[in-house]
Amino acid sequence: MDRKEFRDLATPAEAQETIASLSLEGGIDRVPLAEARGRVLVSRIDADLDVPGFDRASLDGYALRARDTFGADEAEPARLELVGEVHAGEEPDIDVGEGEAVEISTGAVMPPGADAMVPVERTDRAEPDSTDGASSAERRSTDGHAAEPRDDGTDVLVRTSVAPGDNVMFAGADVAAGERALGPGTRITPRDIGLLSALGIEEVPVRARPRVGIVSTGDELVRPGEDLDADSGEIYDVNSYTIAAGIEDAGGEAVLYPHAGDDTAELERVLREAADECDLVLSSGSTSASAVDVVYRVIEAQGELLLHGVSIKPGKPMLVGRLADSAYVGLPGYPVSAMMIFRTFVAPAIREAAGVPEPDTATVSGSMAVAERYTEGRHRLMPVGLLTDGDGETLVYPVDKGSGATTSLAEADGLVEIDPDTDYLEAGTDVTVSLFSPEVRPPTLFGVGEDDPAFGRLLDRLENPRHLSVGTRPAARRLRDGVPDVAVLAGPTDRDLDAEALGAWTREWGLIVRPGNPDDVEGLADLVDRDLRFVNRTSDSGLRTSLEATLEAFATDRGRDRREVVEAIDGFDLGLRAHESPARRVIAGEADVALGLRETADRLDLGFVRLGDQDVRALANPDRLEKPGVRELREALESNPALLADDAYR
Amino acid sequence: MDRKEFRDLATPAEAQETIASLSLEGGIDRVPLAEARGRVLVSRIDADLDVPGFDRASLDGYALRARDTFGADEAEPARLELVGEVHAGEEPDIDVGEGEAVEISTGAVMPPGADAMVPVERTDRAEPDSTDGASSAERRSTDGHAAEPRDDGTDVLVRTSVAPGDNVMFAGADVAAGERALGPGTRITPRDIGLLSALGIEEVPVRARPRVGIVSTGDELVRPGEDLDADSGEIYDVNSYTIAAGIEDAGGEAVLYPHAGDDTAELERVLREAADECDLVLSSGSTSASAVDVVYRVIEAQGELLLHGVSIKPGKPMLVGRLADSAYVGLPGYPVSAMMIFRTFVAPAIREAAGVPEPDTATVSGSMAVAERYTEGRHRLMPVGLLTDGDGETLVYPVDKGSGATTSLAEADGLVEIDPDTDYLEAGTDVTVSLFSPEVRPPTLFGVGEDDPAFGRLLDRLENPRHLSVGTRPAARRLRDGVPDVAVLAGPTDRDLDAEALGAWTREWGLIVRPGNPDDVEGLADLVDRDLRFVNRTSDSGLRTSLEATLEAFATDRGRDRREVVEAIDGFDLGLRAHESPARRVIAGEADVALGLRETADRLDLGFVRLGDQDVRALANPDRLEKPGVRELREALESNPALLADDAYR
Repeated sequence: MDRKEFRDLATPAEAQETIASLSLEGGIDRVPLAEARGRVLVSRIDADLDVPGFDRASLDGYALRARDTFGADEAEPARLELVGEVHAGEEPDIDVGEGEAVEISTGAVMPPGADAMVPVERTDRAEPDSTDGASSAERRSTDGHAAEPRDDGTDVLVRTSVAPGDNVMFAGADVAAGERALGPGTRITPRDIGLLSALGIEEVPVRARPRVGIVSTGDELVRPGEDLDADSGEIYDVNSYTIAAGIEDAGGEAVLYPHAGDDTAELERVLREAADECDLVLSSGSTSASAVDVVYRVIEAQGELLLHGVSIKPGKPMLVGRLADSAYVGLPGYPVSAMMIFRTFVAPAIREAAGVPEPDTATVSGSMAVAERYTEGRHRLMPVGLLTDGDGETLVYPVDKGSGATTSLAEADGLVEIDPDTDYLEAGTDVTVSLFSPEVRPPTLFGVGEDDPAFGRLLDRLENPRHLSVGTRPAARRLRDGVPDVAVLAGPTDRDLDAEALGAWTREWGLIVRPGNPDDVEGLADLVDRDLRFVNRTSDSGLRTSLEATLEAFATDRGRDRREVVEAIDGFDLGLRAHESPARRVIAGEADVALGLRETADRLDLGFVRLGDQDVRALANPDRLEKPGVRELREALESNPALLADDAYR
Repeated sequence: MDRKEFRDLATPAEAQETIASLSLEGGIDRVPLAEARGRVLVSRIDADLDVPGFDRASLDGYALRARDTFGADEAEPARLELVGEVHAGEEPDIDVGEGEAVEISTGAVMPPGADAMVPVERTDRAEPDSTDGASSAERRSTDGHAAEPRDDGTDVLVRTSVAPGDNVMFAGADVAAGERALGPGTRITPRDIGLLSALGIEEVPVRARPRVGIVSTGDELVRPGEDLDADSGEIYDVNSYTIAAGIEDAGGEAVLYPHAGDDTAELERVLREAADECDLVLSSGSTSASAVDVVYRVIEAQGELLLHGVSIKPGKPMLVGRLADSAYVGLPGYPVSAMMIFRTFVAPAIREAAGVPEPDTATVSGSMAVAERYTEGRHRLMPVGLLTDGDGETLVYPVDKGSGATTSLAEADGLVEIDPDTDYLEAGTDVTVSLFSPEVRPPTLFGVGEDDPAFGRLLDRLENPRHLSVGTRPAARRLRDGVPDVAVLAGPTDRDLDAEALGAWTREWGLIVRPGNPDDVEGLADLVDRDLRFVNRTSDSGLRTSLEATLEAFATDRGRDRREVVEAIDGFDLGLRAHESPARRVIAGEADVALGLRETADRLDLGFVRLGDQDVRALANPDRLEKPGVRELREALESNPALLADDAYR
């Protein structure tokens, strides 16, 4: 097979058509009724019995001949002789003759001879009239003023007239044998299970879920739960379980194959095995050069390559073909790219094969919260986050932390497709977002700023918040741009923001040292004067700003230049993004002193040298004050000060 | 316990509050990541490792010192010495010194000494410059015009300058150890599984699904799959599996208990066992007098009755209480009533306990297609069907075949709540429908009329049609009322309808007799003159109309009165609703001759005596001609005449 035959990239529409042309359909499963919910019938189900299977009393009361009640009313009840009783689940052992009645319970079989029933509420019981031996039908006109009715009497006084069939459900009236009950393609919901139950059917033929095998490649991948050797560049395999969950969302059955590493013989073996056992094989990360060679070899031996390369970003190296009797799609290795290509090209084909329609909630409309420029001239899948503004309208913003970042997967709610001719999306442009999962909803609160431990505890009390730990400076900028609901800022900030303060608290900050402070660190002077390895935070963080201010004062005190002082600190320029990271370097023995919070030191059982207290403020976008999530946050801040206290954690 | 303490019926709101006050929450499950989709985290998940765990190359290319590339561009590339290579999943075994580069693949660990990387596209390989032994950094300015670059050379020409950190994802840049990853209450979707995978977490603590036990009572109930004795009044148990599916829809785990019959000791034992094992026990049909006594006894011994009787229709005898540590709700026995009470009162409590929000698709808005009157002065749950009109708007119509009918469950899509003060809903009134399941969708085509076998085959080709077999006469009336899309009418009809004919076909009708026609039936004369037992169809059916017309002609031929002729036929007045039912009576030996179709006789291997051909017509509501389902039907009728042929079935 010649790799060069695919010189031109396919269009996204061609890729969609090619995948649609592959048959992913599994066979037929026979599943018990208890497991049929959500499955799709492959063939029509006809009733093969009548429901009910007998003429059935609809109420508690008396079975009788309708003719015996003609003309009866409250003033002149009909008197019938009680000749027996029949309960639900019993075969009647008595016939109802003229002038006779049988006590009958709801659901019981109508006794022979009876053609109607009267509910107990319209009757009374009475002792037999002693006047004569005439039939009760004849007695009726003469005994209107007889003794008081009695509950346990053996006559029945019927205070209404009924027509034949009244209060009786005839055999087959609900469902008749031979009727079409459910059509092929019916997706089985609880009510359909009700109808199948009524027909006594306890196993139904449904479409087998398409079996979708996942083969991940790359020597560096380790399955979650196993040990990771970061020094050797190992990372956890993100795509396998993520795509597996996407497959299940789409109605397929995911099969994870053992990780093939970069051993090409092993990869070839796994691909062949997966093709044997599945309706569709997905590989991820196998668009790299060496893996592609293996895929080509396997396809050459027992398949057909239909497409290599799609004019789309991300996803350009996508492969589509057939491996033996299985369909094959090669996905990108980066999680966000893999998820977007899966969502756009593969999930619809799985749903089609499973007979599961795309849920209405799988897409939402919104308008761009910010402008977005894109000039590459290729069809683009843009990962986006959702939020709601103060009026409840949905806003959409691009999420891009770099294609290798798994957090952009967690921070994105879906994707927007942008055609090649669009190079600029104005803020306010209406877009349609394909959600990564139909259950995804915009967060109730969208915050940015410090990853403050106290604020983190507060978030735990809220329903579905999103908080991006971008640090103080970027948070102030983003709040000014109007996207987030709330910014959490720490330490001194340059200028005033047009924002509403929801609450403020303080936190103790300083130097985190080894347990027991074996180096006897007392303050900044030790960092400057001694040979200690320090770890700093990035300049985005509030702690860094406070440290800089304190150092400035320290330098002034000593009558020295700030720059001189900073240069004397070993590691001052190494700033870490996350608030606990410096302390963890101390634990790892890679540093002696770290910038951090007392709370962090306490929690990690490290020593702490206090440098000061720092203000932390939660500021809200003034347009979002009435948004329920913002109101909830304000209330939590006002009513739960203990949440913010250092000693309240864990 | 005094049953009389509940003299006043509770309001629906009180019932809702009472059920909400019961705790249905289960404990905590620890589930593997592969099974975590859709579950709800009980506690926050913090990162306990950096992602990535090392400084990671973002692209294929060369790791180097950024400083060595300063000033490099296409015209004057920087020349570096290639000193080694590092692949993904390998620990680097080489340091990068000044003027040196290491070949690196995407995802590999940055070797010590390197602080940036350059993608391979911006480089070339070249033979070492032979001019002198100076470092490559020094050589750069002098060798711009050296030999052509070669792929396998041991020098690297870098045609761009990079800054420290370019094309490198630093350890923890994606997720830093100690960061808050997912909050408690997060409903896990594929993207969250991605983040958990990246953190190497393969088991998560999630809310246990509430265990909901189902206890069904009634001697007449038989589980689907078992044998049914209709003569003893047995029917299949509809509620158990239907409610079980509703429980699973709401995020609970359904536990079916063995059927207790009406044996009170056994019912008591089962109730106690279910209360022991479940968070909520539901019983159905146990609001009947004898079962209620048992429930009272069990509750008296080890629980508390909180509510008996709700002012609602259906559902008035609902019971709510506690059984030992379990919550308890007694549901009505009739399937539609049980489903509506479950949907309205019980499902929200299960969802709350499971942490599963009500899907947006669980309710839809629509307008009443017909007027509805209701004067009982009680809060009402009205089962309704949905359809879409020609403009795609949702119409809502009441479904009520009697509370005992399981088919009304299958024909209803949800329920509308009507408050006690509303006694009349005008056609066009806007209503909100609570769907029986979030997957329920309006049918694509709503037909009424004959249960014609040919039309049934045609329906099998359409996606999600609904057809109610009401017979020809009621279908004509309903089409005039404007509710259905299509009516299927057979035989002569009285008057013209304002409707568009979509298609017509004929079917052969006559008398169905035992195989081989042992009674030598030749036509109507045999029914009139001989002692044969006949089974008719109801007067709603088109076949009945054709039979009446033929009899009329027969009577005229003989010079006799129609009534005389009819009275001479034994069983003429017994009309069965469904088209196959009369033939099945012949099979059962309960009749000698049945009215029916040749197709039915052939399929059931019975004899057939032809009386004529009958026209069948599919007529469409003129307002719905552009509705996709109607268009699809018309196309199917026009293009698939074979579907309608008698010999095309099965």
